[in-house]
Amino acid sequence: MEIDELKQIIKNADTAINREDFDDLMDFYSDDATLVIKPGMLAKGKEEIRRAFEAIADYFNHSLIVNQEKMAIIEAGDTALVIANAKLSANQKTNSEFSMERNATYVFKKDLKGTWRCIIDNSYGAEILE
Amino acid sequence: MEIDELKQIIKNADTAINREDFDDLMDFYSDDATLVIKPGMLAKGKEEIRRAFEAIADYFNHSLIVNQEKMAIIEAGDTALVIANAKLSANQKTNSEFSMERNATYVFKKDLKGTWRCIIDNSYGAEILE
Repeated sequence: MEIDELKQIIKNADTAINREDFDDLMDFYSDDATLVIKPGMLAKGKEEIRRAFEAIADYFNHSLIVNQEKMAIIEAGDTALVIANAKLSANQKTNSEFSMERNATYVFKKDLKGTWRCIIDNSYGAEILE
Repeated sequence: MEIDELKQIIKNADTAINREDFDDLMDFYSDDATLVIKPGMLAKGKEEIRRAFEAIADYFNHSLIVNQEKMAIIEAGDTALVIANAKLSANQKTNSEFSMERNATYVFKKDLKGTWRCIIDNSYGAEILE
């Protein structure tokens, strides 16, 4: 059940990204969440994360579509590790280095009310090591 | 500092694996930790994790050596995601499917005393999706 719930949460977050509904999207993150903008560059907290998503949307000329079908979720207590195969597409790219398929890595944590929130968002997965 | 501390903890855990010092090794895990033994097979809690490591040591004829040099660590509050390039070697292999280099994924959490403990150990990284 927890796994189905988490999968649905991630699908809803993708929908929010694809619609550029950043108010909705910020609800998926904990207050102290960390987002990997790109290897070596982090956004910390909702304000920075929101600004990063706005910049990413702009960078892709508001045509970014994210879809994650294949997921593996491993839970331990109130924490879950999610490995997801993320397919990204955009009508226009300004940088040829952009990877269209990634194995993303997320950490989710249940807040005090029992809602799963993303606390670490590393859409680069192991690419971060390169 | 936290990152250096975590790197040292992981190096110490590798030393414990290489020496088959499982008493020492169990100290790196939280009580409710989850270990991915192989995709689709989990060990939950120290007792199961210890048995899994004993079986793994046996499987590799007590010759397994783990070394992790390249690591990326992303923190958020009391939680950290670790992506590590793990090099594994063994004198004798009984299964040709064994991968000698992996991008492992770990989640660490600070316990109430401020000690980082591994709560999710997925040495398969994104291979778990396959």
